[in-house]
Amino acid sequence: MKVAIMGYGTIGSGVAEVLRTNKEQIELKVSEPIELKYVLDLRESISPEDNDKLVHDFKVIEEDPEVGLVVETMGGIHPAYEFVKAALEKGKHVVTSNKALVDAMGSKLIAIAKEHHCNFYFEASVGGGIPVIRTIYHNYAGEKIVEITGILNGTTNYILTEMREKGASFEDTLREAQKLGYAERDPSADIDGFDTSRKTAILLSMSSGCRCRHEDIFTEGIRNVSSMDFQYAREMGMTIKLLGSVQAREDKYFAYVAPIMIGKTDPLFAVDGVFNGIRIVGNCLGSTMLYGRGAGKLPTASAVVSDMIAAVRHQHEFQGIGWSEKMLTIEPMGNNSFSYFVRVEGTPEGIKKELKENFLKHSGKLVPIALGGRNDEFGFVTDEMFEKDFIEGVRVFEEKTGRRVFHYIRTEGELSD
Amino acid sequence: MKVAIMGYGTIGSGVAEVLRTNKEQIELKVSEPIELKYVLDLRESISPEDNDKLVHDFKVIEEDPEVGLVVETMGGIHPAYEFVKAALEKGKHVVTSNKALVDAMGSKLIAIAKEHHCNFYFEASVGGGIPVIRTIYHNYAGEKIVEITGILNGTTNYILTEMREKGASFEDTLREAQKLGYAERDPSADIDGFDTSRKTAILLSMSSGCRCRHEDIFTEGIRNVSSMDFQYAREMGMTIKLLGSVQAREDKYFAYVAPIMIGKTDPLFAVDGVFNGIRIVGNCLGSTMLYGRGAGKLPTASAVVSDMIAAVRHQHEFQGIGWSEKMLTIEPMGNNSFSYFVRVEGTPEGIKKELKENFLKHSGKLVPIALGGRNDEFGFVTDEMFEKDFIEGVRVFEEKTGRRVFHYIRTEGELSD
Repeated sequence: MKVAIMGYGTIGSGVAEVLRTNKEQIELKVSEPIELKYVLDLRESISPEDNDKLVHDFKVIEEDPEVGLVVETMGGIHPAYEFVKAALEKGKHVVTSNKALVDAMGSKLIAIAKEHHCNFYFEASVGGGIPVIRTIYHNYAGEKIVEITGILNGTTNYILTEMREKGASFEDTLREAQKLGYAERDPSADIDGFDTSRKTAILLSMSSGCRCRHEDIFTEGIRNVSSMDFQYAREMGMTIKLLGSVQAREDKYFAYVAPIMIGKTDPLFAVDGVFNGIRIVGNCLGSTMLYGRGAGKLPTASAVVSDMIAAVRHQHEFQGIGWSEKMLTIEPMGNNSFSYFVRVEGTPEGIKKELKENFLKHSGKLVPIALGGRNDEFGFVTDEMFEKDFIEGVRVFEEKTGRRVFHYIRTEGELSD
Repeated sequence: MKVAIMGYGTIGSGVAEVLRTNKEQIELKVSEPIELKYVLDLRESISPEDNDKLVHDFKVIEEDPEVGLVVETMGGIHPAYEFVKAALEKGKHVVTSNKALVDAMGSKLIAIAKEHHCNFYFEASVGGGIPVIRTIYHNYAGEKIVEITGILNGTTNYILTEMREKGASFEDTLREAQKLGYAERDPSADIDGFDTSRKTAILLSMSSGCRCRHEDIFTEGIRNVSSMDFQYAREMGMTIKLLGSVQAREDKYFAYVAPIMIGKTDPLFAVDGVFNGIRIVGNCLGSTMLYGRGAGKLPTASAVVSDMIAAVRHQHEFQGIGWSEKMLTIEPMGNNSFSYFVRVEGTPEGIKKELKENFLKHSGKLVPIALGGRNDEFGFVTDEMFEKDFIEGVRVFEEKTGRRVFHYIRTEGELSD
């Protein structure tokens, strides 16, 4: 099958490299060779191995009936959307690594693919080299997926891991990560959680079968996670991870992106540095996890290539990976429940009653956590409660006692175990 | 598609249960319903939900042209082999959870399936609910697999985890595990590594594309792992896991089953209790891991059901998951290389020269590890060396010094990182 790659950046050039490096391996897996015919890029020249395939006009690809498969690694929504749409309408299979495109236009493109009896694959849009899309669709086909929770962004996981290991501040660690090339000069998409939010939206769509918007998912980044928070976490034998989470309970769907305190028994606890981990809980399977490199040239390119192999294997049938255009209603964040780690001004003396009334209604048991004899603040963990009740509890507590709640971090509630 | 289940034990009855529990979910995934028509079992009656489907004669299933898919969960090689073979020869798809069958007869059955244009699936034969077979075949289709290393047996992992947590002896922990039903009354298949060895053979066949015999894989169980070994491991920030490992280097294949000391940066470090973890390293993807329940009724049954869904989806094509009948040559264990943790009689004084000559040729650096002031023995870790050189080193060392090497445990060498 003849192939075109649109966008010869990190991922696109990686795809060409994997096709070359693993040529023999790939040919064993498919009934016909995968042959790169065109590379679409704005530049005047690209690397020597592929320069003879360089074209500047998408029309060349669109109108060449020999091209059966188009790989989109341009990024961004426009003109990626227009190009992918046109390719599908010509009956060409499309493989993309572009999460912005899949998040914003996925349901439309899946419907167009279906209409034209071709496939639209997007494995590399979530979790880089971790094959989460295919795992949900094929491997757990007989399961009711009750939860997907993941460390989905390598940059923030690197920053949080460094903060934990070195006791450094968020600002210093971010600067260092930028120096090392692990964080962008404008780091907002990563550290404010938007990248994780887009991936979470794709996972929510995959597991619910319906369309959703990442803008509707509660999203909190890691800017406010401090070295002090990590000191408390260490005291409790826990760590802090930025998680994107999707949960299904009684036909209702919950989702959030937020820094979460997790304990050692959680398989995500040990997922450090630039690695990603995705926990998938099925009603029969129980808890499972996929672990690997969530980004990077070759791992992401390899995921694209596995989609390309699927496109060749299934060139005569619509596989149906994806979701419908029906819009999903996500439950409001207030209806999620967590235990909360809370840092309060002063010492527990004199406010025990207010703490119990607002945060420890069920257990009634306050276990204050102090850091090395400090008496300007202390921490504790609430009972599991609804987010809306917790937020209201904070308001009432601050009003009644005049004491400030400095910070809180959600910890994994029982319901998500 | 009409289905027969052969063997209504834990897994077989679990399959019937998953089909009932997730009926709606499954119907969304396939073009026609999956309908259980027969259950083959020796007993006179089975649970009320399925009792009306009970038959005692395989011929009924074999000769019913309506049955398009047969699930084999009987275990053992005979008569499972004869039944599966006959079913495939009638053009019926077969799904099995039986690792003994797949290990011993896999290549033959795959060839028969191909000849009769039907599929033979065996996801549940390795890793229970962890979809490792499909991951290798589909998700990493474009990869050269350079290593698969896994904690593949829940019983031994439970025992080793308990020994580490409680500081208990192997014998006491095994007895406790037997009491709790986590270990069989005859525990040999688990603790002597044969179960892991069979699964490792299947993974080796999947990754090499050739047939191999688990008898040819060096296999050492956990009987000789002691609470003392765990004390040393703790001193070094490591733990001990029974690993099955397959490695490909320059067209040579290496494989072993043995207790291995691993460090905190290994994602398998945190795989505890009855959970399994499988690390797969691809030449482009780098290191990845799958984590989940490696055994148990519903997780294993769910893996069987995902194969059943695949059988319906691909009922008109041979998928080709498997390997050829060509026999693979596994490199001898002596050609594997590790660093070794070694426990030696006495103190290092007076034998430093012999230790360096035999075990520390490259680094020349001896770092003795002592346990709480004991002077009857000490431990140390060798340079990475070939197994054959290490074994010879132990012989020469004992001969020259008159000191005993009490025990050694392989640790992960650089080559497998």
